Amino acid sequence: MAELGTLVLLRHGQSTWNAENLFTGWVDVPLSELGEGEARRGGELLAETGLLPDVVHTSLLRRAISTANIALDVADRHWIEVKRDWRLNERHYGALQGKNKKQTLDEYGEEQFMLWRRSYDTPPPPIEPGSEYSQDGDARYAGLGGEMPLTECLKDVVARMLPYWDSAIVPDLRAGKNVLVAAHGNSLRALVKHLDGISDSDIAGLNIPTGIPLRYDLDADLKPTNPGGTYLDPEAAKEAAAAVANQGR
Amino acid sequence: MAELGTLVLLRHGQSTWNAENLFTGWVDVPLSELGEGEARRGGELLAETGLLPDVVHTSLLRRAISTANIALDVADRHWIEVKRDWRLNERHYGALQGKNKKQTLDEYGEEQFMLWRRSYDTPPPPIEPGSEYSQDGDARYAGLGGEMPLTECLKDVVARMLPYWDSAIVPDLRAGKNVLVAAHGNSLRALVKHLDGISDSDIAGLNIPTGIPLRYDLDADLKPTNPGGTYLDPEAAKEAAAAVANQGR
Repeated sequence: MAELGTLVLLRHGQSTWNAENLFTGWVDVPLSELGEGEARRGGELLAETGLLPDVVHTSLLRRAISTANIALDVADRHWIEVKRDWRLNERHYGALQGKNKKQTLDEYGEEQFMLWRRSYDTPPPPIEPGSEYSQDGDARYAGLGGEMPLTECLKDVVARMLPYWDSAIVPDLRAGKNVLVAAHGNSLRALVKHLDGISDSDIAGLNIPTGIPLRYDLDADLKPTNPGGTYLDPEAAKEAAAAVANQGR
Repeated sequence: MAELGTLVLLRHGQSTWNAENLFTGWVDVPLSELGEGEARRGGELLAETGLLPDVVHTSLLRRAISTANIALDVADRHWIEVKRDWRLNERHYGALQGKNKKQTLDEYGEEQFMLWRRSYDTPPPPIEPGSEYSQDGDARYAGLGGEMPLTECLKDVVARMLPYWDSAIVPDLRAGKNVLVAAHGNSLRALVKHLDGISDSDIAGLNIPTGIPLRYDLDADLKPTNPGGTYLDPEAAKEAAAAVANQGR
């Protein structure tokens, strides 16, 4: 049997709303200048390590799409096959979309705040249809029908992401292709939870840094031969993960 | 029968080599700053006219890919389906790739120069394998085998482009999708020649300006109901076409 391709996960660089400390979810904000630089650095790491993707999978959100475009251009792989799916989108943050993280913390208190941010199965309140940061009527989600979320917890993200993993990403890996997945903090946490068999409680402590490609080598049963994956810049990943853990403080 | 989607052609904006007046062909140069601005303007025209693509087809060359990425981002259609194929590449310019247009004109004289640039069936001399601007060993063309060109005339471009039109673009149009084709002066001239039934001699006089979307409305037999197409900014198209005709002078 042919060897599987290598899987590389890339969390998008800083967005303008990350910079302003707002809950973003499905609101389609652009990368900040810092985020564009992170994406370039991600592309340099792919080129330097010779880990060259044959196909890229992205969410439908601009910050992941731009991160992929920039990184692949830097790595001279701008010409590869592209696939996009809403199932790789960030967690839908419900009524919190557009709210300031610090204000939300002050208003609801530490316990409720951390429950929404890090509990496995407690979603925030659903977003009001027609409200400013709702995605009602957005053409890219026209085909979703009843699957269109109004809020999500991480458990929901796992449930809607895994069918895409199985039906779209795994076949590319089995075809021997190196696969880049350019996505988001929570859709990538959902995937890593699945790959590494992380428990519902332990996943709360896992932060994936932005802009640093995370490599997984998988065996024929899709189990990582390098559990936890391998960051292409381990030192930077360590520093960045610590910074993410302090968001909202 | 469902109505066909709308076809929109977009020639990439100025590249760094356009700016330096070099024959480019398959050499994978980036857009210049001016070219990035042209791509943004192309995206604004799509948004302003409400002509929103459902799928984009690009060549494998950076200047067309970046043009599509920039224009679609501006038009808020960054999330649409993407397809790429070498058959949409610019004409392979053979041994002229990397040469200055003015110097080539001075060296070979007006007649030979215009024959290479504008005759339908006279290709330039083939590029030397292994020479600086050859695409030997480029991973993106690994699957081409004997179809890999070493030089091309426009007739060759028509011959390798049409199978992609028939097998990939037409099915998208028949599915009712609005299709953006982001490509090159000669691959788009080849397509326009086919659509409008332009003769082998008359196509020499046709220049497609950069960065201005060109709309074609097709009937069920794929004949344009607006022969010659409709530029989304007709005034700018007129000025630009005149400028292109003077290249190399």
